[in-house]
Amino acid sequence: MNKVEKISIVGAGLVGSLMSVYLAKRGYKVSLFESRPDLRKADISAGRSINLALSNRGWLPLQEVGLKEKAEKLTIPMKGRMMHNEKGELTFQPYGKSGQAIYSISRSGLNSLLLDAAEATGVEVFFNQKCKEVDLNNNILLLNDKKISSDIIIGADGAFSVIRQAMEHTSRFNYSQQYLEHGYKELSIPPSSTNDFKIDKNSLHIWPRGNFMLIALPNLDGSFTCTLFFPFEGDQSFDQLHSDEAIINFFKKEFPDAYELMPDLLNDFHSNPTSALVTVRSSPWYKNRSLLIGDAAHAIVPFYGQGMNCGFEDCRVLNDLLTQFEDNWDLALPEYSQMRTPDANAISDLALKNFIEMRDHVADNDFLLRKKIEAKLNELYPEKWIPIYSMVTFNENIRYSKAAALGKLQASIMDKVMASPNLESQWEHLDFESIINQLPSM
Amino acid sequence: MNKVEKISIVGAGLVGSLMSVYLAKRGYKVSLFESRPDLRKADISAGRSINLALSNRGWLPLQEVGLKEKAEKLTIPMKGRMMHNEKGELTFQPYGKSGQAIYSISRSGLNSLLLDAAEATGVEVFFNQKCKEVDLNNNILLLNDKKISSDIIIGADGAFSVIRQAMEHTSRFNYSQQYLEHGYKELSIPPSSTNDFKIDKNSLHIWPRGNFMLIALPNLDGSFTCTLFFPFEGDQSFDQLHSDEAIINFFKKEFPDAYELMPDLLNDFHSNPTSALVTVRSSPWYKNRSLLIGDAAHAIVPFYGQGMNCGFEDCRVLNDLLTQFEDNWDLALPEYSQMRTPDANAISDLALKNFIEMRDHVADNDFLLRKKIEAKLNELYPEKWIPIYSMVTFNENIRYSKAAALGKLQASIMDKVMASPNLESQWEHLDFESIINQLPSM
Repeated sequence: MNKVEKISIVGAGLVGSLMSVYLAKRGYKVSLFESRPDLRKADISAGRSINLALSNRGWLPLQEVGLKEKAEKLTIPMKGRMMHNEKGELTFQPYGKSGQAIYSISRSGLNSLLLDAAEATGVEVFFNQKCKEVDLNNNILLLNDKKISSDIIIGADGAFSVIRQAMEHTSRFNYSQQYLEHGYKELSIPPSSTNDFKIDKNSLHIWPRGNFMLIALPNLDGSFTCTLFFPFEGDQSFDQLHSDEAIINFFKKEFPDAYELMPDLLNDFHSNPTSALVTVRSSPWYKNRSLLIGDAAHAIVPFYGQGMNCGFEDCRVLNDLLTQFEDNWDLALPEYSQMRTPDANAISDLALKNFIEMRDHVADNDFLLRKKIEAKLNELYPEKWIPIYSMVTFNENIRYSKAAALGKLQASIMDKVMASPNLESQWEHLDFESIINQLPSM
Repeated sequence: MNKVEKISIVGAGLVGSLMSVYLAKRGYKVSLFESRPDLRKADISAGRSINLALSNRGWLPLQEVGLKEKAEKLTIPMKGRMMHNEKGELTFQPYGKSGQAIYSISRSGLNSLLLDAAEATGVEVFFNQKCKEVDLNNNILLLNDKKISSDIIIGADGAFSVIRQAMEHTSRFNYSQQYLEHGYKELSIPPSSTNDFKIDKNSLHIWPRGNFMLIALPNLDGSFTCTLFFPFEGDQSFDQLHSDEAIINFFKKEFPDAYELMPDLLNDFHSNPTSALVTVRSSPWYKNRSLLIGDAAHAIVPFYGQGMNCGFEDCRVLNDLLTQFEDNWDLALPEYSQMRTPDANAISDLALKNFIEMRDHVADNDFLLRKKIEAKLNELYPEKWIPIYSMVTFNENIRYSKAAALGKLQASIMDKVMASPNLESQWEHLDFESIINQLPSM
């Protein structure tokens, strides 16, 4: 390959912006092209989640590019799940014994921070640049009506990536897009009249209801952004909420405590879109001198809070590989693709599975007992038995694929444990050592 | 929906042509658009398989549209598999005890027959019509540079369907394309100097070699079309066959008897493309008033000989549903999609699995013993124990999805049987009644 000097990144969302900073710091001449206007100057939030949960895999890259402190100021720590039952009763489940937290952060706030950093590092950022086509053989982008040549093209243009679509039409490119039967709609709990949080600020709130759920994440201004995950069609579905009365009755019955806190419910419900939830998988993540990162390569459902974190990890891994291979992209690209695809597949599967756990199991007794026993194992053997949620969320040094494999093994061990007689009363007398010995060493 | 009068079918291959005949017979005004020239006048075989195996699910629709007798004249029955080992020794495995056969037929011969029938039934056929775009909301095709309106659009345009690609970009359309690590290349065994078949004419010939294989199907002119299925990359792969010497050495070593019969090997090898093998899945198979049939909806790998047969079955099922719903397409389309997607998924999975069976297992002793026991079960209980291959190939009244489910059940029963002690010598003394009673009634 010719020497790489000029890199074009398509998509100045969270992942594209972060990647541009990494590459500019390596000394490349980086151009970042975004189809929308500059979000620092215009309100363009519609259709995308307003806030996100940042966790360790996201923090590490932010730290590497020197943005950790600035990002921290934008966040609210959430130290556990706050479960709301049908009567409005609360149960708190901490994420960890040592106060581990995930961090609610505004998408636009973080994106602005990354764009500022990109510009400060010498990245040239161009807005309102719609990528219409890419010539993968000759490394040419068609942006609006202008052709741009580059040494490397990076598709960071999200789940409906134009760069990936071009790859889909080349031979031997594996691709899938699978939609859930559920859609989602964003709603809000505004701050109190004194601008305070109306419910616990340091929790991720969940109203699990079997086949559907409502969640809420805090914002810096005292409000919460709520998301209703609900089937598109069927007996209980968005399809059935066709009148104001139906919407109000549904919320009063299913989420009575939340309903009381949502004065703008009807307005939010009508003005916000009902969006679909897609899982995108692809491989390989490069073709010739073009590559994919973030949702463009692997859009996942939001139920593990890992979409952005996984995309940020893509950037970190690619940067590490460029260091390892001394910026030889011919060596780095195949390695990047081969290494990251199993990790992305693993977190895709975990995210799909976690939807069922969040909406259905988190409130049931067996699930809580299981978690109690796992917590005990973790307390006794903190290095050996790390709950899968912790491995994914708080252990950025364990690859997703390894976490998933260990999680499967733990689950099969726990299935046997859960079949023990009188477990509810006797679980503290289990032979924890023999349980832990069923795991291989990390 | 408005009354349906005018139907446009994109793709005048085997499936599109057959569908046009069915619909013209129902009284619709049908236009059939094909991007290539008329294959009855031009040689355009490159890149597609030359012959195919027609079996019961393909025969039934041909009979329904009155083409069975004419098609029969184009076929050569294959009554079993002829296995060739590394020494050139032969083993024949009949498909059934009563002389059941699958039928080798030329793709272009059958396609010509179907096009003639389409024209004779009043279908208007247009060649050299490249479909560039489809407007799924307004039912408009862009063909070359002309817009065509229709009441119904049918995408019969193959694995890389333009109609399906438009659907892929609509929300909640599930889609996947997965490539095998193997590719294929067509080769040939010409007739003898007296224009006779050089190997048994009434067999599907297989040279199974573990990770790869060669197969051969007879043609009416005394020749055989051979197909080498071989990895693209790796130690033993197309990648390694980079010189004439390497090609010759490979064939001499792996397929010595075939090599002797292939005077044009090098020429064939160099002039025929190495093609990829893709599995395409999608759902739903319709959007508004456009629908998919055949490979456009479900391209499968060729290892069960069911690609064309499944596509023909799509046509028959859709025609049956139109009869059932009195040509109400609003009712027929959702039912067609819901009914056929599990069947297409089932045959996709079976075809992938059969590659391993064909290239690897057919030659091994356990496999042969297993088949012997299954044949005995079938002989004793012909209505209850039908081998999966027979259900798929010879029992057009059993849906693919049901055949696959029964096949799975049979396999789990046979796994237990195969674990019996001294089976090789004692299998005739098995308690066949207790085995058969593990199956539910059909």
